[in-house]
Amino acid sequence: MAAAKDDSAGEDRPWGEVAPEAARRLLIAAVDAFAERGYHATTTRDIAGRAGMSPAALYIHYKTKEELLYRISRIGHEKAVEILRTAAEGEGGAAERLACAVRSFVRWHAGQHTTARVVQYELDALGAESRAEIVTLRRQADAQVRVILDDGVAAGEFDVPDIPGTTLAVLSLCIDVARWFNAAGRRTPDEVGTLYADLVLRMVGAKPAGG
Amino acid sequence: MAAAKDDSAGEDRPWGEVAPEAARRLLIAAVDAFAERGYHATTTRDIAGRAGMSPAALYIHYKTKEELLYRISRIGHEKAVEILRTAAEGEGGAAERLACAVRSFVRWHAGQHTTARVVQYELDALGAESRAEIVTLRRQADAQVRVILDDGVAAGEFDVPDIPGTTLAVLSLCIDVARWFNAAGRRTPDEVGTLYADLVLRMVGAKPAGG
Repeated sequence: MAAAKDDSAGEDRPWGEVAPEAARRLLIAAVDAFAERGYHATTTRDIAGRAGMSPAALYIHYKTKEELLYRISRIGHEKAVEILRTAAEGEGGAAERLACAVRSFVRWHAGQHTTARVVQYELDALGAESRAEIVTLRRQADAQVRVILDDGVAAGEFDVPDIPGTTLAVLSLCIDVARWFNAAGRRTPDEVGTLYADLVLRMVGAKPAGG
Repeated sequence: MAAAKDDSAGEDRPWGEVAPEAARRLLIAAVDAFAERGYHATTTRDIAGRAGMSPAALYIHYKTKEELLYRISRIGHEKAVEILRTAAEGEGGAAERLACAVRSFVRWHAGQHTTARVVQYELDALGAESRAEIVTLRRQADAQVRVILDDGVAAGEFDVPDIPGTTLAVLSLCIDVARWFNAAGRRTPDEVGTLYADLVLRMVGAKPAGG
């Protein structure tokens, strides 16, 4: 009940901008197939079949299976950067912006856990060129969190001895939600986001609000 | 250099007790194959080939591919429970035992990241009966951390509003090291363990030592 409501109330599936509709349907079918059987065990025929299309129809939109993985990974990472940048550039002090970043990043990984698993666990299957692009996006995501920590330390709001290491840990904690989150479980994406925002503020030694 | 040293200085590969030697070699080959291509894309023929054996020789030791995954998962989870139990039952106050649990759990996930990825990401491929056994082991691992948090709160050493949620987060943070850890990267398993122990003590609001 609560879980079902929250799952649908999560971020929109990130494929809204993929056009035409057949290309979007194929991408969603690929996410489900990769998540279920892994990238290497999935064929383009499987993906076309899931989308109710012929293999020939798939090749109109995607030349290779790797191109599908690349598109999924690219869209997923762009969404991650956007979520974190919105928080980093938001109103308020560093603590407020960090809490916002963690809440929305957790919500995305909980609500979109199938997509997030493919995005996170199949990176090695990308070709060198695609991987380099994705690594650039990952650095951009990283930089959004790091800037909030830098700001917090500079303002005397945070106490963080190792900013790169703490940035890594904050992102890692949020990303791993995709591994364990279960829509039928006890906690909604919002509840996990609220808990994690509190834990992360403790990690950075944030002064209690108004303190 | 440092990374290579630390990788070999990690926990022993957990397969030492698997006998006879052919069964051990097959298990190690299966870990490598599953990590590289995923469980579903790997055949028993691939695994036998990697171990320099014939498929017929494999069947003497393992009836199915799933049995190999089950053995890997069981040994990996037993090791996790052992690491956490040793810390939970160790000497010292709750802060000391929690730091020890995090350091050794992180070291294992960094040093054995290939095995840990298979253990963590291929759970869904286990049959119902095997999975139930593994879930029991996961609950035991969980309970070790939870008991340290309970002790710390009871002793007034920790301030933890949500013990089950914080237990989950602590384990999740350590487990995700297997995803991002790179033996050629900047941080050794020990360095990550030390950083994470500090971050986790902050998460539980541990009073500074002697404070």
